Parts: sequence; structure tokens; C-alpha cells
Amino acid sequence: MRLAHDRRWAATGLLALLLLAAPAFGQSDPLPSWNEGPAKQAIVAFIQATTTQGSPGFVPPETRIAAFDQDGTLWVEHPMYSQVVYCFERVPALVKAKPELAKVEPFKTVMSGNREAIAKLPMKDLEKILAATLSGMSVDEFQVEVKRWLAETKDPRWKKPYTELTYLPMQEVLKYLRANGYRTYIVTGGGQDFVRVYAEQTYGVPPEQVVGTAGGTKYGYGKDGRPFLTKEPRLLLNNNNAGKPEGIHFMIGRRPNAAFGNSTGDRQMLEYTKAGDGARLAMLVLHDDASREYAYGPATGLPDTKVGAFTQALYDEAKKQGWTVISMKDDWRRIFAFEP
Amino acid sequence: MRLAHDRRWAATGLLALLLLAAPAFGQSDPLPSWNEGPAKQAIVAFIQATTTQGSPGFVPPETRIAAFDQDGTLWVEHPMYSQVVYCFERVPALVKAKPELAKVEPFKTVMSGNREAIAKLPMKDLEKILAATLSGMSVDEFQVEVKRWLAETKDPRWKKPYTELTYLPMQEVLKYLRANGYRTYIVTGGGQDFVRVYAEQTYGVPPEQVVGTAGGTKYGYGKDGRPFLTKEPRLLLNNNNAGKPEGIHFMIGRRPNAAFGNSTGDRQMLEYTKAGDGARLAMLVLHDDASREYAYGPATGLPDTKVGAFTQALYDEAKKQGWTVISMKDDWRRIFAFEP
Repeated sequence: MRLAHDRRWAATGLLALLLLAAPAFGQSDPLPSWNEGPAKQAIVAFIQATTTQGSPGFVPPETRIAAFDQDGTLWVEHPMYSQVVYCFERVPALVKAKPELAKVEPFKTVMSGNREAIAKLPMKDLEKILAATLSGMSVDEFQVEVKRWLAETKDPRWKKPYTELTYLPMQEVLKYLRANGYRTYIVTGGGQDFVRVYAEQTYGVPPEQVVGTAGGTKYGYGKDGRPFLTKEPRLLLNNNNAGKPEGIHFMIGRRPNAAFGNSTGDRQMLEYTKAGDGARLAMLVLHDDASREYAYGPATGLPDTKVGAFTQALYDEAKKQGWTVISMKDDWRRIFAFEP
Repeated sequence: MRLAHDRRWAATGLLALLLLAAPAFGQSDPLPSWNEGPAKQAIVAFIQATTTQGSPGFVPPETRIAAFDQDGTLWVEHPMYSQVVYCFERVPALVKAKPELAKVEPFKTVMSGNREAIAKLPMKDLEKILAATLSGMSVDEFQVEVKRWLAETKDPRWKKPYTELTYLPMQEVLKYLRANGYRTYIVTGGGQDFVRVYAEQTYGVPPEQVVGTAGGTKYGYGKDGRPFLTKEPRLLLNNNNAGKPEGIHFMIGRRPNAAFGNSTGDRQMLEYTKAGDGARLAMLVLHDDASREYAYGPATGLPDTKVGAFTQALYDEAKKQGWTVISMKDDWRRIFAFEP
């Protein structure tokens, strides 16, 4: 009877294993907005390799870090970064507060309303507008101002607030990673304080996990003696290109295990992520869906645009380095939560 | 029989409640190295006010932040910051690598071994030594170097590695806060990358929760094509005095609910923390125990020293603002884990 006893126990053990495993098998697809294909497979394989105890690629939970570019990777960046729209729309209020600016370029051109002339403003002038409209107020005032603007403003194409123009497939990746112990960071060329205003509600990413281009602040006291911080135009961190790995080291101090981007500004972040030991994931979103979103970059045959330059050289490096290119057209079944 | 039935259920419910509550009542003291007194009471009252659902001071778990200065607050800072010791001890290796420095001040003085002359070096020269010894290598090399130095070096008084000279009562506060949902940050005037090397093992604080004085890094490629970051002497964040709230905003983006310091360099951090709404905790460690540790600052009658200046003005502000002063002598039953 010894054998039968063992067999019975073995069967019970097997049943227990099946029951334990059942939630995994029975689990609904964590990436329902993704079509089956190499991109989805790469994400699932990465999670399995890094979270399976005993796997050679296993990463201890406390060191699991994933970095996401924002503009063009988590939400729409065309035809203009929403933060740049914000800055332009802030110019009239700025000029009202400081009338002397009305005669000074580039504010004069912006106030003229001449769209052609505004579109031609060189990068240097754009930086002046950003610095002037993103500084000079307290960090609390700035938060209130951005929050109000986001609530009032709609994207002209979809007639939705910008914060609804996030890509549902990427929202699923954020959640899937977090459900597997990853801390998800936004690593953006956009303004750190700007993105922090809505990142928690929009992406589930708290302020301390937003790494972005940042200016300094200045500590001071109000009339009531209470201390507050004023935003200064002095640039502390230019979180683009090589600035992304530099910003990651500065703010996080660990190399990410996974990184997601969509433009040449993300190249160094992806290189840096991939250069670490063990299983690594590097992905690039390719905007090749003119009907559901936009098409720009090499695979489309269209010239690169000012924002989100996905150059042919970047495409070639992706292929060479084993980064996975995500085709919006082929890999994403749905793009926005508000669309079927 | 209805009543009896209800009573039986009521009794069962009460028993269940008692059983549920038992771990709380039966829990051992979370601060066993603290003597009973106002300092210990302030910590316990703060935890209760901010973590009790329905309490007016309740803080949602995701926004619970506590900030700790390091030198003199979490570990011994006398007679010299251990990081400064590290930098001085690195000078010979630096001069070996760059022999031209042997003839240049302040390196010449350091190499002379003349203790009196070294002690007289002005702050400007000290900064030169720090910048030179904390930069010029990759971030990985720096980590290896600091780790090796910490393993080999002992404090001359206790003959223990510096990482054992942490205050047991403060370790208990760190754990007590974390057990109650707080994320504990180190906000130090010391080098961010230096402290990150041992903060996780020594304090349970991961690299991304260390805010410190930081220089820039430079992204580049090795001979094998692999990218790496080189530490640069360029100062990004001077995390002292007003730099502490500025660094907190930059790195965390939220105002802490509690802050702990021990010197004038922590004044603005404590002010900033206390100026927020709701229940706030601001504490200062007073070094008044010459026999078990050191005594310096106003309460001791001894003059302020170069490091950890706890001035009379700071003491007066603490009293005025309702910050709690921790007397090492009176409030701490034990100071180090290695002592009874």
C-alpha cells in the first residue's frame, strides 16, 4: 500500500501545484491592447526572465527599475509638445505682468499672433520662452497654474484633455511592470515639475519617480514668515540625450533594467540600460499610424519633424543593438482608452 | 434565546477584536533605546496622529515622507566627517596618478603630512580636495573604491568601521517610520554618491532615497564601446542650508512630514517641513554626551566647532518653532549597537 499512498500524495501534490498555478494560467492577458507579435513577446519574456526565482536573469525586487520617456512614448507629442503649448499660452499673462517684455523678442513675435513667424522661431528663442514661463513663481503657484490649464485645455484633433491622450498599451506596460515589482520612472526631456503635476493621476507615477529637465529653485520667506521655494530660470538638468543617463544616475542611482523611448533623445538611455548585466529590455515606439495617430520617422518615408526625431540612424542602431521597435500600426490593437 | 444568541455573537466579536488588537498591545516597544521623555513622546505622537484613519493629522500612506540628515544625526561626525577623511586619504593616490599636483596647493600641504598646516586649510582648499578626489573616475570605479575604503578603515576612538558608528536610537526611528508606511530619505550635505554606497546596508535606505551634495556626470563610451558615466567636479546640488529644501523639491517633489537634523545646515529643511499643513515633526539631535559620544554646541557651554554647528540661534529657533531637541545624554538609553 506504500506505493498507492505515495501515488495518492503525488496526485494531491500535483493538484495543489495546479491550483497554485491556476491564477497564472487563468489570469487575463496583462497586455490586452497589444497584438500578438515580437514586441508583446519581448515584454512578457523580459518579465518572466527577471521575476522567476532561479532564472539566470532574475532581478531582486528592490532593484527593479523601468524608465519611460514621456512625449511620444506615453502620450501624443504631435504636432507640438503639450508643455510647449502651455508655455506659449502663458506668454500673454507674462507680458501683462511684465509689460516691458512686449517689445522684446521672442515675446513680441509670440504676442503678434503671426503663426508663420512663431513657427520659425529658432530653438534659442523657444528656450527663452520656456525659461520665462516656467520660472519666477513659487512651486505651489506653478502647480496650481498647470493643473488649471490641463483641466481647461483640449487637444485640437481629439477634443480631449491632453492627459487623456495617453497610449493605452503603454499604460498596460506600466501596470504590468508594477504588478511584477518594478518601480516605473518617467525620464523625460519635458519639465520635471510640469510632468509631476499630473503623472500620479495619469500614469500612477509619483512625483519622486519623475526625472525631467529641471531648473533650480530658491528658498525664501513670505510676508507671513512662512518659507517657500521660487522657480528659477537656472538650468540644473537638461534631461535629453546623454542627459538622460546622467539624470538617471543623479536621481535614481541605479541603472534601469528596462527603458522605453521613441526618439534620438532616448538613444543614450536605451544604450545605458542595455549595457547592464542580465536580462534587459530596450524598446522604441515607432509612429507609423497616420490614421489612428501620426506617422513620422524613417519607416514611414516621411521626413523627420522637429519633435520626436526617430532618425534612420536610430532605427539602424535599434536593429544592431537588439532593441525592439514597437509599430503602433501593427503592435497596438487599441491606442486610446476613449476609442474602441 | 435571541438575546443569548446575540450576546454570544457580541462576545465572539469582542474576542475577535481583542485578538486583532493584540499584536498592537502586545507589541514590544518600537523605540527601546530611548528613555521615556518628551523626545520619545513626540515621535510616538507623530506616528499616531499621521497614521490613524480619521485623525485630523492623517497622512495618506503614499505621501508619507521623512527626511534625515546624516552626519551627526544618523552617525558620528566628530572629529571629522568620514567623507572628508576619505578625501584626504585619497590624495596620495591622486598625486601618484597626477604627479604635477605634488607642487600645487592644497595638495602640497596634504602630502607634507604637517597636521597643523592641514588643519588650517581654508574651506576653499578643502573644496578643492573634495572636488579632485570625488571626481575624474567612473561611477562604478568610485563605488568600488569607497566600498573598499569603508571595509578597511576604522574610527580611531572606537576602533570600529564608520558604518558601525550609527546611532541605535535613530536606527529605531528609521524602522519605526518605515513600519508605519513612511519612506525614509537621507538628506545630507555629504556626497550623494558617497552615501549611496553604504546607505542601503547601513540604514535600509536605497540609493534613490539618498539626496546629497552632487556633482555632474558625463556620459561616454569605453574602448569596448560600452557606455559609462564619469564623475565630474562640476557642482549640481549643494545640499546644505537652503540647498536642503531645494534638493528635496528637486529629488522628491513633496514636502516631508518629518525631518531630523543636528546643525544649522538643517535649519531650512526643518522650517520647510514644519511649514506644511497637518501634523509635522521636526527634531534636532543635541550632542551633549562627552563620555558616551561628544559634547558640542550651546547646551554644553563649549564653543561650536567646524562641523555640526548647533548654534545658540538654532537652539532658540527650535524652542520658538516647536522643534523637539533630542538630548543624547538624557533621551538615549543606548547610543551604539555594539555597546551595552
